[in-house]
Amino acid sequence: MSGRVALTNCGEVLTNAGDVLHGGTVLFSSGRVVDVIVGPSPSGFESVDVGGRVVTPGLIDAHTHAVYAGSRANEYEMRAKGATYQEIAAGGGGILSTVRAVRELDGEQLFAESRKHAEWMLKCGTTTAEIKSGYGLATLHELKMLDVVRRIGEETALDTVGTFLGAHAVPPEFAGDRKGYMDLVVDEMVPLVVSTGVASAFDIFVEEGYFDADDARRLAETLALPLRMHVDQFSSGGAQLASELGAATADHLEQTGPEGIEALADARVVPVLLPASVFCLGQKKYPDARRMLDFGMPVVLATDFNPGSSPTPSLPLVMSLACTQMGMTPMEALCGCTVNAAKALGRGDIGVLAPGAKADAVVWDTDDLSEVSYYVSAPLVWAVFKDGERAV
Amino acid sequence: MSGRVALTNCGEVLTNAGDVLHGGTVLFSSGRVVDVIVGPSPSGFESVDVGGRVVTPGLIDAHTHAVYAGSRANEYEMRAKGATYQEIAAGGGGILSTVRAVRELDGEQLFAESRKHAEWMLKCGTTTAEIKSGYGLATLHELKMLDVVRRIGEETALDTVGTFLGAHAVPPEFAGDRKGYMDLVVDEMVPLVVSTGVASAFDIFVEEGYFDADDARRLAETLALPLRMHVDQFSSGGAQLASELGAATADHLEQTGPEGIEALADARVVPVLLPASVFCLGQKKYPDARRMLDFGMPVVLATDFNPGSSPTPSLPLVMSLACTQMGMTPMEALCGCTVNAAKALGRGDIGVLAPGAKADAVVWDTDDLSEVSYYVSAPLVWAVFKDGERAV
Repeated sequence: MSGRVALTNCGEVLTNAGDVLHGGTVLFSSGRVVDVIVGPSPSGFESVDVGGRVVTPGLIDAHTHAVYAGSRANEYEMRAKGATYQEIAAGGGGILSTVRAVRELDGEQLFAESRKHAEWMLKCGTTTAEIKSGYGLATLHELKMLDVVRRIGEETALDTVGTFLGAHAVPPEFAGDRKGYMDLVVDEMVPLVVSTGVASAFDIFVEEGYFDADDARRLAETLALPLRMHVDQFSSGGAQLASELGAATADHLEQTGPEGIEALADARVVPVLLPASVFCLGQKKYPDARRMLDFGMPVVLATDFNPGSSPTPSLPLVMSLACTQMGMTPMEALCGCTVNAAKALGRGDIGVLAPGAKADAVVWDTDDLSEVSYYVSAPLVWAVFKDGERAV
Repeated sequence: MSGRVALTNCGEVLTNAGDVLHGGTVLFSSGRVVDVIVGPSPSGFESVDVGGRVVTPGLIDAHTHAVYAGSRANEYEMRAKGATYQEIAAGGGGILSTVRAVRELDGEQLFAESRKHAEWMLKCGTTTAEIKSGYGLATLHELKMLDVVRRIGEETALDTVGTFLGAHAVPPEFAGDRKGYMDLVVDEMVPLVVSTGVASAFDIFVEEGYFDADDARRLAETLALPLRMHVDQFSSGGAQLASELGAATADHLEQTGPEGIEALADARVVPVLLPASVFCLGQKKYPDARRMLDFGMPVVLATDFNPGSSPTPSLPLVMSLACTQMGMTPMEALCGCTVNAAKALGRGDIGVLAPGAKADAVVWDTDDLSEVSYYVSAPLVWAVFKDGERAV
């Protein structure tokens, strides 16, 4: 392959936030977008006729826990029968059951399990995924997870961005001693994560029974990497905390009210919404995306792919949820998984099809960009290009 | 191909309602299941090693409107922005916009459009789909639709079952004269549908503004084919009517209360639930599947695949909806798309993997049957066998 590829005969091409070019040709060279032009391809490019189909930037999943072992389909069945999250956790389930499964595997085994998840994401149109640690909850296991995230990025077609989520839950060996565990996170894990360069951000799960404002403040005060925060999934007030701490992103936000949204907007915190976790838990209250959009915020949509609360690798499903359950338009949903998601990760080279951007794109088996989310769970991914080469 | 195929090294095989064989081999010959046995394949079969994956009967979608033209993605966007179904219909949208699109095409063009939908269904694991008329609403156009249903069954790998739904809506030329349109349906269309053998059942949409109890009674009194009824999607009382008329199935049932469910159970009417239409319309009230299951009813799950209220070809999505939103277990959901769906269509030769049944099966890329619905919208269909041959 010459590395020079032209996607010709495109129907609609989503080039940047809401910008659509009709009847275009997308030109790739050496893994980058050369240009998106109207009309046929210049010479010197290997032509791929996409037959009037629509083309978008490769999707970006800005919030996942896709490195894990052991499904929790049993909990799914228990929830169907009416068990609460608390009852499941009390029975040895929940996050800590995944922690046990992850600790039991060495890096090679964990990579083999997680690679499967990466391949699912690719087949659903995702070309870059943020993946968090947080099922190790001990120094070596957290680093093992982040190394698997790195390996997925290097050994599969999926690009990965690692996030250190040591503060996901308090592990059993620190039961009743959250402060002791936070000492370990801040004093031992953080310096190792930073020095090895395996993560681009920190993250913390702020909820009753997990971590609190003081813990988040300690992490923020390391000033080592951008801070992301899981807030307001079950309680409220977290949005204000994220704003106060200058977080890069605030993720979940199901319970965030108008004041919290205004605080996030003022502090320019990027909201990352995870409607599939609402859906999979059978809950009814989705985050108030419309109010965020009215404030001009760059609303991000992500899968939250994890074995407990959101076992889905599919951003198209998440876009369908956004449109049917949250009043977002199909174009707002597409931006939430492309250009806005790139913002959440602090990246300017992905999420758009513009000269210089990475040559990551999805060709969808439809002539209407709206149908990507309209046709829920339909097999519409026709081709995925990663770094200018066909990956799916 | 010899026509003798063995799926070997199966993990779990769902053979019949809730019956699971572990470590089995599924034997096909001449398009039929010969047997499902424990252990390796006897000689004389072409072996397909499924590597420990799970195998189910081919899925059966017992309620679709998959023959149509023209997407209604624009309405989807209008709904996202807050428009009601009534406002959309008043603006020229709704069922009648699809009627216009269907009438404009000849049979060949309509087949080309609809074939795509059939291929999506196959890729999602569906091997038999019921498909209704009801976007023609004039004799020749209704027959054109049913002929396309027949052609899909003959010219694609998807088996089809046609249902005559002339009483889907009152067409514009009969505006204000519902009785006149019902005369046409009963006196002209019904005899033609019966004599040409293109449908296995009649159906009627009973809702305020569409058709009422008297219309349903007229159709039932023809006694020509089994009666199916769309009831209780927006109003209530339809379940009792379906019971009184001895309907084969009652479909939708979102608004059906305890008395209606008891009436259906007493009259042995098969309930066909369509949670994707609730989901896609952004509504919150799902049918009360648990109460139906408690009455021992064979609850069926179907997509309702149509361009307005349920643009999804995916039964796995419908199973995920059943488990996350309706309290059904993964096994109850699987039965709803296999053995119970066969009951809704009056068929004993599909929906099971038992000697003599059609050799229709799906191999899923997981070792746990629960994960078929647990991993929402994941690309888990590994292979689809239709009449003993690989179709996907």
